[in-house]
Amino acid sequence: MDTPKTPADFDRSELASLLDGRWAHVRDQVRGSLAEADLSPGDELDTEAHRARTLDQLHQLVGSGITGLGFPLSHGGQGDIGGSVVSLEMLPGNLSLMVKAGVQWGLFGGAVVALGTDRHHDRYLAKIMNLELPGCFAMTETGHGSDVQRLRTTATYDPDTDEFVVHTPHEAARKEYIGNAARDGRMAVVFAQLITGGEGRGVHALMVPIRDDAGRPVPGVRIEDCGRKAGLNGVDNGRLTFDRVRVPREALLNRYGDVEPGGAYRSPVDSEGKRFFTMLGTLIRGRISVAGTAGSAAKLALRIALRYGDARRQFERPGTGEETVVLDYLAHQRKLLPLLAKSFALHFAQEELVSTLHDMQNSGDERAQRELESRAAGLKAVTTWHATRTIQTCREACGGAGYLTENQLPQLKADTDVFTTFEGDNTVLLQLVAKGLLTNYKDQFDDLGTIGMARFVADQFVGAVIERTAARSLVQRLIDAAPKRDDENEIFDRGWQLELFEDREKHVLDGLARRLRRATGRDADPFEVFNNAQDHVLRAARVHVDRVVLEAFVAGIERCGDPRTAAVLDRVCDLHVLSTVEEDRAWFLEHERLNSRRAKTITEAVNALCGQLRPLAVDLVESFGIPDQWLTAPIATGAEARRQRDQREHDLTGG
Amino acid sequence: MDTPKTPADFDRSELASLLDGRWAHVRDQVRGSLAEADLSPGDELDTEAHRARTLDQLHQLVGSGITGLGFPLSHGGQGDIGGSVVSLEMLPGNLSLMVKAGVQWGLFGGAVVALGTDRHHDRYLAKIMNLELPGCFAMTETGHGSDVQRLRTTATYDPDTDEFVVHTPHEAARKEYIGNAARDGRMAVVFAQLITGGEGRGVHALMVPIRDDAGRPVPGVRIEDCGRKAGLNGVDNGRLTFDRVRVPREALLNRYGDVEPGGAYRSPVDSEGKRFFTMLGTLIRGRISVAGTAGSAAKLALRIALRYGDARRQFERPGTGEETVVLDYLAHQRKLLPLLAKSFALHFAQEELVSTLHDMQNSGDERAQRELESRAAGLKAVTTWHATRTIQTCREACGGAGYLTENQLPQLKADTDVFTTFEGDNTVLLQLVAKGLLTNYKDQFDDLGTIGMARFVADQFVGAVIERTAARSLVQRLIDAAPKRDDENEIFDRGWQLELFEDREKHVLDGLARRLRRATGRDADPFEVFNNAQDHVLRAARVHVDRVVLEAFVAGIERCGDPRTAAVLDRVCDLHVLSTVEEDRAWFLEHERLNSRRAKTITEAVNALCGQLRPLAVDLVESFGIPDQWLTAPIATGAEARRQRDQREHDLTGG
Repeated sequence: MDTPKTPADFDRSELASLLDGRWAHVRDQVRGSLAEADLSPGDELDTEAHRARTLDQLHQLVGSGITGLGFPLSHGGQGDIGGSVVSLEMLPGNLSLMVKAGVQWGLFGGAVVALGTDRHHDRYLAKIMNLELPGCFAMTETGHGSDVQRLRTTATYDPDTDEFVVHTPHEAARKEYIGNAARDGRMAVVFAQLITGGEGRGVHALMVPIRDDAGRPVPGVRIEDCGRKAGLNGVDNGRLTFDRVRVPREALLNRYGDVEPGGAYRSPVDSEGKRFFTMLGTLIRGRISVAGTAGSAAKLALRIALRYGDARRQFERPGTGEETVVLDYLAHQRKLLPLLAKSFALHFAQEELVSTLHDMQNSGDERAQRELESRAAGLKAVTTWHATRTIQTCREACGGAGYLTENQLPQLKADTDVFTTFEGDNTVLLQLVAKGLLTNYKDQFDDLGTIGMARFVADQFVGAVIERTAARSLVQRLIDAAPKRDDENEIFDRGWQLELFEDREKHVLDGLARRLRRATGRDADPFEVFNNAQDHVLRAARVHVDRVVLEAFVAGIERCGDPRTAAVLDRVCDLHVLSTVEEDRAWFLEHERLNSRRAKTITEAVNALCGQLRPLAVDLVESFGIPDQWLTAPIATGAEARRQRDQREHDLTGG
Repeated sequence: MDTPKTPADFDRSELASLLDGRWAHVRDQVRGSLAEADLSPGDELDTEAHRARTLDQLHQLVGSGITGLGFPLSHGGQGDIGGSVVSLEMLPGNLSLMVKAGVQWGLFGGAVVALGTDRHHDRYLAKIMNLELPGCFAMTETGHGSDVQRLRTTATYDPDTDEFVVHTPHEAARKEYIGNAARDGRMAVVFAQLITGGEGRGVHALMVPIRDDAGRPVPGVRIEDCGRKAGLNGVDNGRLTFDRVRVPREALLNRYGDVEPGGAYRSPVDSEGKRFFTMLGTLIRGRISVAGTAGSAAKLALRIALRYGDARRQFERPGTGEETVVLDYLAHQRKLLPLLAKSFALHFAQEELVSTLHDMQNSGDERAQRELESRAAGLKAVTTWHATRTIQTCREACGGAGYLTENQLPQLKADTDVFTTFEGDNTVLLQLVAKGLLTNYKDQFDDLGTIGMARFVADQFVGAVIERTAARSLVQRLIDAAPKRDDENEIFDRGWQLELFEDREKHVLDGLARRLRRATGRDADPFEVFNNAQDHVLRAARVHVDRVVLEAFVAGIERCGDPRTAAVLDRVCDLHVLSTVEEDRAWFLEHERLNSRRAKTITEAVNALCGQLRPLAVDLVESFGIPDQWLTAPIATGAEARRQRDQREHDLTGG
């Protein structure tokens, strides 16, 4: 096997600018704000002080001008949805701030923009942008998190007073984990089952005051504090319980459903299910922001672990009188470098996703919207799991030092841990992705389609077939150009790699469709049929996302202007592909896509690529441009290097 | 495929007593102490208050009588080494307490017992047991954690005053992460390079005072606080720097090496290397305690997640009007039940290890001692990684509720996270295990044996060949009895399973030996040879530990007195084996131990076993007998069940 050569160096500014990408100006704007304002995290403070500081920092963000990015030009915003997502992604060093900003401007403000109409926009948007009106996004309930469609809070129209009565019928129906609720929020966008004329109209959202001007809960609203959490303790999560709280009829965010005086209900969307998913679909920005931030947190963790691994030494190398740099150990490279490579892949996939979100605003193309939702769900799941795994691995790779708060990894781990289950539980999200993919096969199993799938998996996908990515024509060209040789070097051929991923996706999906169809023929309980295939369902979604991510990576390299830099990225991409294949090689072997010999070659190639990329590892992770203000860990900012120098000097002088 | 039937029920007290095992009396003693003393964790307190409370709880443990378990009868202890390990394992609900107790009585006290002689025992042991003398175990340095043999603190004998001068020559040589150092410790067992007559004698340990009676650092000792950590903040970890601190000659813990007045050095162990590893070998109790505690923490996490999963519902099951209990989803079962099964396997392996430790005391059998050290290293690595993975999975399985401190999983995660890298970094430990296994093949690659392996991997293993476990004859009987059929049901045959694990271990190890031998023939740099094979080395250790653990599980089932209960354990064991095989099925496919059809059958069997064991899951996890005082999570103690009842009642009455 001849591993393609990796250049000894690359153009750092070329790579940095490629990675900064379309929203480089926003990234620079946040870098500038960090230089001016003190946005350093307050995790060492007690809960109250931490929350106060985080709120104060939110006010500082207002001054920076980045908080209006996602709001409409018509109301003083900048109409830059993509920029608003990217700006949050630049805050991995203070995730309480990122999440609280996301709640205020992304979720709360985003819901008012997307679900409200002029009457709400005119009244609230300016105050939301400048934080005069801190607010909550009150969707999740204690009893219903993933299954939002069944939440139990009610908003009943009372024609006598022309008001809605918002009510929590039992404890499971209280609003749970609501950011900004325990301390700062004045209003909440409350999701509730709308009832008018005695009839349920499905989930709708209303603007409900929760605190008065003095900050006291308004009558009928009980607010509890969720208390300490694993992390994100600068965010004041709380529980809201409503005891027949009355709000005017106009409080209803009425873009997708309205009640007229007297109680008549109208909606531009016919079916209740479709209306629900249309409303939810407008809110995917939060999900995309979480994916982006998770990716940044993983990059910051890698930056710490790689810099430490590049300085730290342990165990003497015989014959040299020197101790070995730990990143020179293959085991250490294998822990960190495939995760670094995957971070590159996910970075490009994230930018592609944000671009699509940005360009699609109000396009009215329903199919494209469904596709975007699926991509957001899949990438959010994969990226947040990647972050959890990466930060955990980095913590272990730094040994005892990684356990000390001063070295940042504990806080990164604790703060990001909830990312895998909030803004959509990852396991549920992957089922949504699979569901979307299966609509391709709808004709083949009508029974399950209506009885089974449509109801076990929350039915967000009406007719999505996720097929094409932006890079599609490039991908096809590479696949077509792949030499049809059968030697051990073909594993480095990009066309071969792309085809391998595409083929796996198709095969897994075909198999799943066949399996479900077969099972439904037997008069089986459709729940059982779908449940018994759940591992297969999740795998289908995963391999689909793998393919989409790889295509984005390939397209990103294509945009690189410098050949030497592109050649380095090519090797990073090889490492990403081959370590992904290695991890899933059982499947490739079972399905005769690889034989044993080839599988072993892939392991050798991963080892070889780790060795080749090791000298570039620190420079590569630096290229992501995580602001220096977020890197405070002593082990990654000189302390370890200094100690190694001191020890060496001492050894040389004989003490 | 016919999955063997699982009985609908089992004898809970039979299983509980089997799991309580040989040290049931100690487990009961701790359960009793918990009922009497308030040992509840203080993680909500600020650092100082948390540390004070933990120290106070340490004093309460003194009253309970369990702290003398590991000390010699001759000095007022109970001479029950096994019991002392098991007692710590019963504290998973307050891991700061467990670790601080482990430092005081296991590491500090244990070092005085093992490395000291009568003069130290008479003077210190009573005060250590009753906590009059809180102490530290000062081994790790900032610059040397895994490579203890190269630590840089010096203890130089001064014949003029008949004293040792303890000194920290540079920052990398300061003692780091030392428990009990930042606040409470009065003395420390300090590991240092002993120098006498101008000659280095290798690492030895000395009793060094670090604080006076008023709690102030003594002259020449600088004490820094390591500050906040991810978890375990009730333990006062600190850094110790010595500026030519003088201690009397008798301060040397002199069992394995002594200095006479005037400076002559004598040791009952000839070679410096052997002396070093003999000394270290006496200290494995700490490592075994960490493995046990990690196992308990995983059980507690599973108890929380399984009880919640058994109560929580989400998504309506069509046609029933009811929501589905989340543990009825295959994906949820697959997350938790293989980890539950592995917890059983590791439980039996841990008890076997503790028994061996207990029975071997001072046996003088060097080979058996090396074997024990290898088993301790391997099991510590595997169990602590299992804990990290299990607690993480349980956190995610509980969704947002799992992120709230009140539900315990955040603290369990944060506290146990360091277990994978303290008391031996897991990656280094697995290399030690592999090294021990390779001595089997020593004749085949003499070059590497002397130049290479003997020096890259810390050389703890002199001649260990790890081969036989306690269950060996039973295992051989089962393997011999395995029907030589070749049908799809053979995967449930215990003999077949045992042979599969044994064969994998032998093949991986043979391959590794061949690979290293081949490589050394080529005049290669031995560091490169060993480093390039590092992934193979780690795999050899892992599959070895898998085999040892399985054999312990099989032996445990054999001890079960009730056939129905044994039949349930047999299914748990099947799930453990088959999910382990499934995870590593790429290897089995690559090496033609399984074909594709069989590999798919194994996945089906795992799914089927999950379904069969699901109704018993909560009862199974309860059988571990984790004290009820440690289970405080509202989601696992009735809150969720109550909410579900309320919601159902409300739904039935129509609100």
